[in-house]
This record gives sequence, structure tokens and C-alpha cells, in this order.
Amino acid sequence: MKLNERGLLVVISGPSGVGKGTIREALFELPDNNFCYSVSMTTRKPREGEVDGEDYYFVSREEFERRIDENQFLEYAEFVGQYYGTPRDYIERKLNEGKEVIIEIEVQGALKVRERMPEAVFVFIVPPSRDVLFERLMNRGTEMTNDIKKRIEKAEREFHLAYKYDYIVVNDDVYNAADRIVAIIRAEHARTERSIHKYYEIMEGKEDVEEES
Amino acid sequence: MKLNERGLLVVISGPSGVGKGTIREALFELPDNNFCYSVSMTTRKPREGEVDGEDYYFVSREEFERRIDENQFLEYAEFVGQYYGTPRDYIERKLNEGKEVIIEIEVQGALKVRERMPEAVFVFIVPPSRDVLFERLMNRGTEMTNDIKKRIEKAEREFHLAYKYDYIVVNDDVYNAADRIVAIIRAEHARTERSIHKYYEIMEGKEDVEEES
Repeated sequence: MKLNERGLLVVISGPSGVGKGTIREALFELPDNNFCYSVSMTTRKPREGEVDGEDYYFVSREEFERRIDENQFLEYAEFVGQYYGTPRDYIERKLNEGKEVIIEIEVQGALKVRERMPEAVFVFIVPPSRDVLFERLMNRGTEMTNDIKKRIEKAEREFHLAYKYDYIVVNDDVYNAADRIVAIIRAEHARTERSIHKYYEIMEGKEDVEEES
Repeated sequence: MKLNERGLLVVISGPSGVGKGTIREALFELPDNNFCYSVSMTTRKPREGEVDGEDYYFVSREEFERRIDENQFLEYAEFVGQYYGTPRDYIERKLNEGKEVIIEIEVQGALKVRERMPEAVFVFIVPPSRDVLFERLMNRGTEMTNDIKKRIEKAEREFHLAYKYDYIVVNDDVYNAADRIVAIIRAEHARTERSIHKYYEIMEGKEDVEEES
């Protein structure tokens, strides 16, 4: 029996190179999962095979800017002249359906989401050692190009932002890390601030709760 | 890989009749668990077969009162002329060994532990419905004796104290409830306030962490 029936927004973040994407994929491969992706919105043109509403919501620049004005994004940013954003209404709908919505996002975006939706669960993925991360960022190359140097400096700044997150999960092994996130989701549903309202309703005899499937 | 290597003190509590004891037993039956009991101290005489240091630490009244003065108990109480208490040093030793120490305790005792050891994890066990609890308290009898009335009144007062706990776990099924507590323990180890210190050490290259067994 679940006291909190609303889904959780789970934000998976961390410096570039820690393996956020692989962990997210492992989560979606789990049997009987209740997860859904957040579909981003963008002003860039769809590529061959991309489906509107699945890969992205494709909208015009005017439409995107109207939505910015209407405060409809949990976060958005502009890259190479195109907007990318996380629309809030889709997420709210899925959460109300009881789905856990998983967002995988870079550190700055995650911190913007935190401002707008502090009740989400923020997970910072970290490498098992400093060397592992820097090797990944250097792409196993031996030459320290300017580009690689910049990526390392950015990772250095970002790994100090871990304290702004709720949980720190080490990506020592992708299945271990995914399992730990599943435990975090189960635990968060039982947290008093999420479950006490329903519990008091039950104990006042107002409601009986259905069995957890 | 575990960033927090110290064990957790897990306090399992809730009104009488919710099945705390059964859940604790189910936890200890789990394979490969890392749990240990907290051994209480008492001034009552050992019963046939009870082993000092296993069932209880049996001490004299003078010894117990000396320990009260030295602030050595996480909580203690007197029942029918005998002291019962939870000694802090044994728990600290086990936590330092990386064991999760499970205490199953009534509500008043749990709240005393919370004052002394706020970093512990406090889990409030609740029945799946009001009727289930009251049926258990009435012991399936039909007569409302004075004693049963008192127990129900006490449970009523206690179930309003759920907000003082970190988690609320429904005892719909004892194995479900135990699983949920296992998830809570895993998640708590990953909480930023417990794991960030070690993480910063790793990222400053001071330490490499061993694989989780």
C-alpha cells in the first residue's frame, strides 16, 4: 500500500561524463517500472524519423517565447540559436497519473528545476574516482586540447555543487546505481511530508487505501 | 560503492498493535543483511535461559543509576519498579563497524532517542486502516473492557505523532513493509548530508573507495 499516490519528479544530474544517460537507460529497462520520460520542447526542426510529442515537442520560436512569458517551463536554455525547454504541464499530468517522471539534465538546468519544483527528488551522479571522470572527459586521448581543458574546468566547478542535491549516487556500476535510484524512489514515497496527509485521512476513517499493485 | 560507511541507527516505532515486532523479525530474516539488534540494559533479574549481553545487559540498580547520571542512555524508563534502557556505547560501536542497528521501540521512547540522536532514521509503522488497528487492540474480543479502552485512547494519541518521524510505512503485509524499510536504509546512505564528506575527499583525490560487497 502506497500512501503517496502522486508520482515523483526524479532529476538525475551531474557533471558531463559521469554516465547520467546510461543510468537513465538502465532505469527504463527495469521490468514493471512505472517511469516515464519528460518530453522536451524545442524550436529546432525535427530530424529524419523524429516524432513530435515523443522525441520532442517541436514548436515555433514565437510559440516557445509565448510559453516562456507564461512561465510554462521548469527550465529552458538557448543553444546555437535554438531553444530547448522542459514544459511543466506534461510533467504535472504524468505525476497526477502516478507515474515517476525521470529527467536527465545537466547541472545548471537541474538547479533551475529545483527553484521551480523543490518537491522533486534531486540525484547527483558521481564517478567512483576523480581519475575516472577526467579520463572519460579526455575521451581516453593523451593530448590536452583547449576544449578538453574547458570541459574539465566545468566538471571541477560542477562537482562542488553536489551539496545542492538530495542524494549522491556513485556510478561504480550502472545497475548498482540504477538500483540505488529505485530504492531512493521507494523511500521518498514513504517520507513523512509526502505520506502524512493520506495517513491522517485513513486514521480518521475517511478513506481506505487500495492495495499496491 | 557506499559513500557513507558508518551504519545507521534505524528506529522502528508506532502504536502498540501495528506489528512492529513482526516487521523487525522479517528484517532479520533477510539474507545477507547487515543488521544488528540494540541490546537493552535492565535491573530486573535474568529469567531462565536469558544470556547477559545477548538478551539484556543485566546490571544492579546502583550501576544503572550511575549510567543515567553519566548520560549513557539514549532513552530509559522504569516499569513496575525495574529500569530498562538503551545504552549508547554499544550502538556507537556497532555503527562504527558499519552495522545498521535496528531498535524497535514504543512511541515515547523513540521520541526520546530522536532528541539524543537526531541523525538516526525514524520509521513510524501504521496499520492499513483504523479498523485493523482497533481490532488488534481489542484482541478480536467483542467486550470493550476498561483496559482495551485505555489502549485505544493511547493509540489514538500516538497516531497523531507520526509527523515527528522521517518515514511512514504501512504494515499491509509484513514482507512489503520490511522491503520498504530496506529501501529506506539504502536511500538514507545516499542522502547528501551523509555522503558528501566522503565524496569531496574522493574528488580531491584523497581517497579511493572500496567496492561495495
